[in-house]
Amino acid sequence: YGLAETEDQVGVVTGLAWTSVGGELLSIEALRLPGKGRMKTTGKLGDVMKESIDAASSYVRSISPQIGVKPPKFETIDIHVHVPDGATPKDGPSAGLAMVTSIVSVLTQIPVRKDIAMTGEVSLRGNAMPIGGLKEKLLAALRGGIKTVLIPKDNEKDLSEIPDNVKEGLTIIPVSHVREVLKLALVRQPEPIEWDEAAEEAAAAARKATADAAVQHTAH
Amino acid sequence: YGLAETEDQVGVVTGLAWTSVGGELLSIEALRLPGKGRMKTTGKLGDVMKESIDAASSYVRSISPQIGVKPPKFETIDIHVHVPDGATPKDGPSAGLAMVTSIVSVLTQIPVRKDIAMTGEVSLRGNAMPIGGLKEKLLAALRGGIKTVLIPKDNEKDLSEIPDNVKEGLTIIPVSHVREVLKLALVRQPEPIEWDEAAEEAAAAARKATADAAVQHTAH
Amino acid sequence: YGLAETEDQVGVVTGLAWTSVGGELLSIEALRLPGKGRMKTTGKLGDVMKESIDAASSYVRSISPQIGVKPPKFETIDIHVHVPDGATPKDGPSAGLAMVTSIVSVLTQIPVRKDIAMTGEVSLRGNAMPIGGLKEKLLAALRGGIKTVLIPKDNEKDLSEIPDNVKEGLTIIPVSHVREVLKLALVRQPEPIEWDEAAEEAAAAARKATADAAVQHTAH
Amino acid sequence: YGLAETEDQVGVVTGLAWTSVGGELLSIEALRLPGKGRMKTTGKLGDVMKESIDAASSYVRSISPQIGVKPPKFETIDIHVHVPDGATPKDGPSAGLAMVTSIVSVLTQIPVRKDIAMTGEVSLRGNAMPIGGLKEKLLAALRGGIKTVLIPKDNEKDLSEIPDNVKEGLTIIPVSHVREVLKLALVRQPEPIEWDEAAEEAAAAARKATADAAVQHTAH
Amino acid sequence: YGLAETEDQVGVVTGLAWTSVGGELLSIEALRLPGKGRMKTTGKLGDVMKESIDAASSYVRSISPQIGVKPPKFETIDIHVHVPDGATPKDGPSAGLAMVTSIVSVLTQIPVRKDIAMTGEVSLRGNAMPIGGLKEKLLAALRGGIKTVLIPKDNEKDLSEIPDNVKEGLTIIPVSHVREVLKLALVRQPEPIEWDEAAEEAAAAARKATADAAVQHTAH
Amino acid sequence: YGLAETEDQVGVVTGLAWTSVGGELLSIEALRLPGKGRMKTTGKLGDVMKESIDAASSYVRSISPQIGVKPPKFETIDIHVHVPDGATPKDGPSAGLAMVTSIVSVLTQIPVRKDIAMTGEVSLRGNAMPIGGLKEKLLAALRGGIKTVLIPKDNEKDLSEIPDNVKEGLTIIPVSHVREVLKLALVRQPEPIEWDEAAEEAAAAARKATADAAVQHTAH
Ligand SMILES: [Ca+2]
Ligand SMILES: [Ca+2]
Ligand SMILES: [Ca+2]
Ligand SMILES: [Ca+2]
Ligand SMILES: [Ca+2]
Ligand SMILES: [Ca+2]
Ligand SMILES: [Ca+2]
Ligand SMILES: [Ca+2]
Ligand SMILES: [Ca+2]
Ligand SMILES: [Ca+2]
Ligand SMILES: [Ca+2]
Ligand SMILES: [Ca+2]
Repeated sequence: YGLAETEDQVGVVTGLAWTSVGGELLSIEALRLPGKGRMKTTGKLGDVMKESIDAASSYVRSISPQIGVKPPKFETIDIHVHVPDGATPKDGPSAGLAMVTSIVSVLTQIPVRKDIAMTGEVSLRGNAMPIGGLKEKLLAALRGGIKTVLIPKDNEKDLSEIPDNVKEGLTIIPVSHVREVLKLALVRQPEPIEWDEAAEEAAAAARKATADAAVQHTAH
Repeated sequence: YGLAETEDQVGVVTGLAWTSVGGELLSIEALRLPGKGRMKTTGKLGDVMKESIDAASSYVRSISPQIGVKPPKFETIDIHVHVPDGATPKDGPSAGLAMVTSIVSVLTQIPVRKDIAMTGEVSLRGNAMPIGGLKEKLLAALRGGIKTVLIPKDNEKDLSEIPDNVKEGLTIIPVSHVREVLKLALVRQPEPIEWDEAAEEAAAAARKATADAAVQHTAH
Repeated sequence: YGLAETEDQVGVVTGLAWTSVGGELLSIEALRLPGKGRMKTTGKLGDVMKESIDAASSYVRSISPQIGVKPPKFETIDIHVHVPDGATPKDGPSAGLAMVTSIVSVLTQIPVRKDIAMTGEVSLRGNAMPIGGLKEKLLAALRGGIKTVLIPKDNEKDLSEIPDNVKEGLTIIPVSHVREVLKLALVRQPEPIEWDEAAEEAAAAARKATADAAVQHTAH
Repeated sequence: YGLAETEDQVGVVTGLAWTSVGGELLSIEALRLPGKGRMKTTGKLGDVMKESIDAASSYVRSISPQIGVKPPKFETIDIHVHVPDGATPKDGPSAGLAMVTSIVSVLTQIPVRKDIAMTGEVSLRGNAMPIGGLKEKLLAALRGGIKTVLIPKDNEKDLSEIPDNVKEGLTIIPVSHVREVLKLALVRQPEPIEWDEAAEEAAAAARKATADAAVQHTAH
Repeated sequence: YGLAETEDQVGVVTGLAWTSVGGELLSIEALRLPGKGRMKTTGKLGDVMKESIDAASSYVRSISPQIGVKPPKFETIDIHVHVPDGATPKDGPSAGLAMVTSIVSVLTQIPVRKDIAMTGEVSLRGNAMPIGGLKEKLLAALRGGIKTVLIPKDNEKDLSEIPDNVKEGLTIIPVSHVREVLKLALVRQPEPIEWDEAAEEAAAAARKATADAAVQHTAH
Repeated sequence: YGLAETEDQVGVVTGLAWTSVGGELLSIEALRLPGKGRMKTTGKLGDVMKESIDAASSYVRSISPQIGVKPPKFETIDIHVHVPDGATPKDGPSAGLAMVTSIVSVLTQIPVRKDIAMTGEVSLRGNAMPIGGLKEKLLAALRGGIKTVLIPKDNEKDLSEIPDNVKEGLTIIPVSHVREVLKLALVRQPEPIEWDEAAEEAAAAARKATADAAVQHTAH
């Protein structure tokens, strides 16, 4: 049922899965490659998990200036998200927060804390949404050597059913938005940049003016 | 069965779904991203709901000058429509009016009133078309803290079957066209711009003439 | 089973469907959008109905100069054909004539007469081909407030089985080609333009010569 | 079971189908549109019939100079092949010769003789290959008013099983290659043009040299 | 069960198939068309046979200088491989050697000997790999008038089970690589050209330098 | 159940498969072709094996400077991975290490040692992950004449169950990362090059400046 990572790594996030045989650590890996804005997913992922990666990706693109990434950057890279092992089917939306964290980490090249795990669906606005199987997931985290687990605020009410030894062995932090997740899971915080639509259009216009001038300078 | 949103948000609209276990609030989220005119949909949506998003999108593109958006704008953005939660299958055309509202909101960046919910299929001309399950949907709206519900005019006849306490707890507004929906659901109205095919062709011709002149100025 | 439209509209045509529970009015909606020659179809349409839209579209492209549309125009627009309601499956080729009429109407921006309905498969040459369920379709037209129904000439022989009151309440016009349909269904006739392959190639050559001249003028 | 066409038409060829209920005339329609080398097929065609259209199309492209068509022409047109009626499933390779004839006719704009029908698979080299159901097909041709039927030479041996009245009512011509089919079915013969790979490359080189010269003339 | 071809043809190769009813000659046809590097396959081919064509095609591209074909040539042509008859399902990898031969023949325009047949899977390095049904295939070759049959060296051990009259009526040649197949099956051998990656990059650089010079000559 | 390769070859790697009838050698072949960054896979591969090739490919792209390959190179080549024989279905992630080795070999043109075999899933970071069927795979390696077998470190614990004669007949090397695999399997090591994002952007900027200068030099 998996172990915590042995070092802080860029793009590697520990999620928590809930299967018929109990909870399990899920090691989510993202990689950034030179490319053209494509997203590839592997690891025998079901449609709902693929859609949760789509949602995570769109959310990250929508906040990219806040994490220091200029939006046009996305058109020059591909992102590959893989969830080993490759032979085990995986599905469900509950890795959404982990997917966001993994994508932000590869984009910013900021490593993820190795002793943290997380579970939670993510909305297109970055809200943390409730998940099922909290008890099994927390047990798996404890067994796997995880220190801190992020759970959706809406699952806080389920903590009363969790055995005391589990709650004592883990720091359990309810979160309501991806913002809180990134603060806790990344080893340092990305620096926001200024970027708005007007800026983008001004930049485009400036490029165009330069090009036009170059062309018109050929007249004499 | 969902709660009303807690603040007015851009691109977030409350729809009303009707499932085998009753009515439910549906939180529809749209996001606008730099792109190339693509539409992405997630949330385990069935084919009919996906087609209703296609119809909503085409309708909005057809009226874009009326909401202050120049048609070429669509070629430079992607729109992502997501309907959480990601694990619950959803289908049917009755979220059409909500889809239109959500897309108009992200395009204009005008927030949607948080205490309003709506149900109704939309035609390609923006007409509100009748839906099923009105009673269950209104009950869900009331329970969820919604104040105002927009329903298709063709469903007005079904109001006689609705319990009095529901009708007293909600402002129910029959609408026959998306125009009325946008007036009621957006916190302010978008400003129309002038745009017709002749204008578009004139603009294109002007751009081309400038370019030709630049080239011909190189002759001497 | 539907009602006649309440006003003459561009791109909206009343077809006649035949289902297991009788005849029904079908409101076909086409929309023209800035684009790149794509055709989108929605409304839970079966493969045969989608192919009938393909055939209708190719036929219209093949006669575009006759309806005043320059063929290159098609590369700059998208056409969306929707058949509400979105939840009811629809199939069969018998809406072919209506599809052609709807597409011609959005291309020419000439409205379609609201009190006319039509049924008939269309061939790639614009011929009206016979359909089934004539009686049920005519009954639906009468009930829906339609005044005039266009049927394929090859179905004229089936009129003997139609009740007298239906034949008295409707003007039934057999047609053998789309030409006749457009004359009857559009509120005014489009003006043909001159356009043949030679003309097109001449135009292309002229454009090219101008461009070449502009380039060569830079030599001195 | 169909009737012969009433006039010689461009792109319209009468094929012969063999179904569980007997033989039938098949009216194959091809249309040429401005485009980019795409092939569209409609009429509820099975995969084998679609592949026979692919083979017919490749064969025609491979002989295009022999029918007076410059190969680059193919990149500027789309071809749509439709086989009405749209609701009847059709399959099998035996319309291959008819598909070739139809495509050649739309490319050359030479009409096809209306009183001729044909059956036969076509190979990628234009050979006529044997088909099944010859008797049923010939009966359908006779009933439909066809005067001349082209059959594959390899089916000549099956003529002994055909009733005398059918053989007397039809001119049955065995063919072994598409060349013979085109001679018999087109109302006039296309004029070959000179075109070989060397010519094509020379033309390309010439175009390139002109363009280079134009650019270099800007130097001074 | 097929007959040998009646003349040496470009792109036509006789393969040997093994079906539930015995062995059969398979006439493989390849055609080269002006295009953009696409591969089309028809003839009701199963996925394994389609993959064997992919492997054959990649192998040929990897050795193209050895058969006198410059690699960029592939981007300017399409290849269509068809295996008549179109209605019979065909599958399996054993036509690999024949696929390679057919593709080399259309690329080089060198005809294939008509009295030769072959069977054998091909690896991505051109190795001949063993096949099943050797006896049935050789019987079919004999009956079909074939003089020479190429078989994989790894099937040589199966020859002991082949009846003497078959072995006497055929020249059976075991081969271990496509090189031997091409030597035996083509009526003459292609002339290799010089081509390596360095050459290719040099050519690309030269083209670029010329283009840059042309642009810079406009400066003065 | 396969034999070791007879010579060191570029792109050919011996994997180990585990089927219902025991272990088997798998000959993995990769080929590099001029192209546009496409990956083709053949050999009746299941989805999990195809995904393992995707993961291998992304991993290799992510380390390409370390193996002496400039990242833009990938946009100018296609890679074809084939696993003969073509008729046997294959699946599972355990050929991941072999896929990475095969792709690195074709990219660097460095041959792979013929007497080595390997098994192991690969993560997106190049970690060797555990596999099943170790005993059967080692038996197949021994029978096939393999001298050295690389296995995942996490499978080291399973060696206690392996018969002594197998362990004596093979050099079994546990590996925890692809780095170790490449050191052992390639006949020589690739030379790393300098390449980082800044370098890439500088190069792009330099190219752009040159182009701009060339254009502006035309002004005078
Ligand atoms: Ca696991
Ligand atoms: Ca889950
Ligand atoms: Ca819910
Ligand atoms: Ca619904
Ligand atoms: Ca209805
Ligand atoms: Ca119908
Ligand atoms: Ca019929
Ligand atoms: Ca047939
Ligand atoms: Ca056969
Ligand atoms: Ca076979
Ligand atoms: Ca094997
Ligand atoms: Ca395996």
